Amino acid sequence: MNTTRRNFVKAVAVTTAGAAVLPGHLFARPKKANEKVRLAFIGVGLRGESHVALACNRDDVEIVALSDINAQMMDRAKNIVQKAGRPMPQIILGDKTAYKKVFDIKDLDGVIIATPWEWHCPMILDAIAAGIKYVGTEVMLGITLEDHWKVVRAAEASGAHVMMLENVCYRRDVMAVMNMVRQNVFGELVHLQGGYQHNLRSVLFTEDKPSGDYIFGEKAFSEAQWRTAHSIHRNGDLYPTHGIGPCAMMIDINRGNRFISLSSFDSKARGLHKYTVDKNGEKGTGTKVRFKCGDMITTNIKCANGETILLQHDTFVARPYSLGFRVQGTEGLWMDVSNTIYVNGVSPKYDTWDQADAWLKKYDHPLWQKYGEDSKGAGHGGMDFFVIHAFVESIKRGTPTPMDVYDAAAWSAITPLSEKSIELGNATVEFPDFTSGNWMLRKQDFALDNSY
Amino acid sequence: MNTTRRNFVKAVAVTTAGAAVLPGHLFARPKKANEKVRLAFIGVGLRGESHVALACNRDDVEIVALSDINAQMMDRAKNIVQKAGRPMPQIILGDKTAYKKVFDIKDLDGVIIATPWEWHCPMILDAIAAGIKYVGTEVMLGITLEDHWKVVRAAEASGAHVMMLENVCYRRDVMAVMNMVRQNVFGELVHLQGGYQHNLRSVLFTEDKPSGDYIFGEKAFSEAQWRTAHSIHRNGDLYPTHGIGPCAMMIDINRGNRFISLSSFDSKARGLHKYTVDKNGEKGTGTKVRFKCGDMITTNIKCANGETILLQHDTFVARPYSLGFRVQGTEGLWMDVSNTIYVNGVSPKYDTWDQADAWLKKYDHPLWQKYGEDSKGAGHGGMDFFVIHAFVESIKRGTPTPMDVYDAAAWSAITPLSEKSIELGNATVEFPDFTSGNWMLRKQDFALDNSY
Repeated sequence: MNTTRRNFVKAVAVTTAGAAVLPGHLFARPKKANEKVRLAFIGVGLRGESHVALACNRDDVEIVALSDINAQMMDRAKNIVQKAGRPMPQIILGDKTAYKKVFDIKDLDGVIIATPWEWHCPMILDAIAAGIKYVGTEVMLGITLEDHWKVVRAAEASGAHVMMLENVCYRRDVMAVMNMVRQNVFGELVHLQGGYQHNLRSVLFTEDKPSGDYIFGEKAFSEAQWRTAHSIHRNGDLYPTHGIGPCAMMIDINRGNRFISLSSFDSKARGLHKYTVDKNGEKGTGTKVRFKCGDMITTNIKCANGETILLQHDTFVARPYSLGFRVQGTEGLWMDVSNTIYVNGVSPKYDTWDQADAWLKKYDHPLWQKYGEDSKGAGHGGMDFFVIHAFVESIKRGTPTPMDVYDAAAWSAITPLSEKSIELGNATVEFPDFTSGNWMLRKQDFALDNSY
Repeated sequence: MNTTRRNFVKAVAVTTAGAAVLPGHLFARPKKANEKVRLAFIGVGLRGESHVALACNRDDVEIVALSDINAQMMDRAKNIVQKAGRPMPQIILGDKTAYKKVFDIKDLDGVIIATPWEWHCPMILDAIAAGIKYVGTEVMLGITLEDHWKVVRAAEASGAHVMMLENVCYRRDVMAVMNMVRQNVFGELVHLQGGYQHNLRSVLFTEDKPSGDYIFGEKAFSEAQWRTAHSIHRNGDLYPTHGIGPCAMMIDINRGNRFISLSSFDSKARGLHKYTVDKNGEKGTGTKVRFKCGDMITTNIKCANGETILLQHDTFVARPYSLGFRVQGTEGLWMDVSNTIYVNGVSPKYDTWDQADAWLKKYDHPLWQKYGEDSKGAGHGGMDFFVIHAFVESIKRGTPTPMDVYDAAAWSAITPLSEKSIELGNATVEFPDFTSGNWMLRKQDFALDNSY
């Protein structure tokens, strides 16, 4: 542990001394040198298996157990472990409650959950109840506001660290821009944008080879088994965390700032119906479905320190992938769709874009400078390496995870709040404060140096 | 007049036969061949003089009068007329009511108003009261909702045509994209974006050479005389029409569609204060001012046919110029910040952007194909030619202007509604229907062919 981070941990211990929040990390025992981090994986589908693969690359991790309900997916995960020359972990297959056997394992340091959204909250709660001190979960934290509150309260009561594995916070350009923000390159930030703009049509339907139909639900493949249902029954920003995570970190949300209110506007829902009709005429399964979720959900968020954040959820129409980031201060801004930056007084031409590349290289984050080589081959351009790295390093040091349960709750809360806003006629609704006022006292701890 | 447009005018006459709206154009007398359009110009500042210059280029226009309160600006305008070899029109100088002398002129066909925003509404009303049948006004139509209602009601009662000179509706790429929309290239439209993102710091302050101070108000130059006050006293999207005009035309607003509701989010206001402090330390005039208007105003609009529109007003921070257009359907989209287009099944690579240039060339609008050469040298990349062209051609043919008083009112209404939304805590507020229900019956008439 380097000095900066150690000092920070002390500072937090002092500032939160009088608060109701239990400083759980004070009771966590740092690992001894060469002592391995014992991890179990719940859910080894397409997402989970990539976490398993990353763990296989780490000498400091022992893969203790793999759990899933799908034997085929389990075979793929076992194959990954085998090919890596790792000892075969305990394999837990069975029904939807079989994962609970993970918690019978002795001296487990952490679990990583990569299951359908609706399983995250109950699995996290079960893990905490079983005494697990580090819980890593795929996005989102849960479905409803009540889910998020339950996880926050459980984590506080037990001192468990719940980290949502939001990988985009570690994207190389995003971290470089955060570095620029922290060095005040853009002046005082006033506005940020992000989102999830990704054509999911082929993910939400599986071609049923015998019939030629495009299906979803139990008989479909991977996410089409469960994720499509959310587009049928819900109308809101179903997937806000890739966009909001980086924005939140750049303006210190839950660390001197917080989300105050939100309003979402929903366009008509046409994209998924169009897709199914195009694929299978009027007789396909999807054709009969009334998809509720608007093709474009645009959400405005207001923050306590006066910044606005714009989020866009756009996953049902044909379009190129883009998270649509924009980070803007009084003296300049970055936009990722055009890969451009402008900085007043530094950019060579007045009010004229620079290509971002040279800026991003100049401000490359210390973490990427140190681990860029190690991250090669990891998913999503290397950023998946960093999120697992942060989780494992937190366990080794016995510190809080750099993204914590309050981040997870605040970011995930956008979905149910967005649904509520739309249900009320695009009303502006208030954010809960999951920190119970501690956002005023908490200090920034995300990626302050090159450690994790 | 070509066949398409003539048929359209007949169709409108039939559909509105039973409506309360007076079809004023039925009483307008088309010009005879070689009969000139007699125009007067109220306001010949930096904006007005460019309209005068365009009129000087047209054989079908007679410049009858120029009016302003500023003798220096008038000298510039006179110079333009002289250099063009045109006969010198009547020159009207004097106090703020001197412009009324314009209306004493006999057989005036139209006036073009290019004065500070707060003068538009009273001048339009005076022109209508004086019996002028064609009134062209710079953006915006007025300041308050009441202003907009007054102009609409006056135009209906008199049969006058009030055209807001929103030039961006005629931008070459915008018109090409509208052409694509009309040919269903993007599928059914679900979402549009636009805005006004333009660093106005140097427009809103004038350097006072003797003192070195940066000033605004009476002693300042051009727009700094009056426009700055709006940023001090108002908080909302002060300038929505460049963004909303093209979006509105693409989804037939007031012609089978309409704006339903709106919500605006305001960021903190830092940019203008920062600028004055940077320029003149703590002692400058601007430094003592509390600017009310947020640096970023983000507005969501919902439309009757289910589309969402996102508008951004961003004029107080250092940044490159961009109107930020995006036009998106189920099968593809255009974004102007990246100058890219994607069309499902036509773009060569799945979900991968094409450079827009070839698309924009292929779908170049018939108006640009016909008048592209004539527009060379006209302001704002040629588009200023088209807006004056449309105004003059409407007079010559005795037809409604292609952008009418309902467009002007609906687009301008965004400003007071945006202020109201922000004042109410970013509430969602409803749009008035200036057409009194006729939006359901009215047909699209904007740029249907290559005439005007």
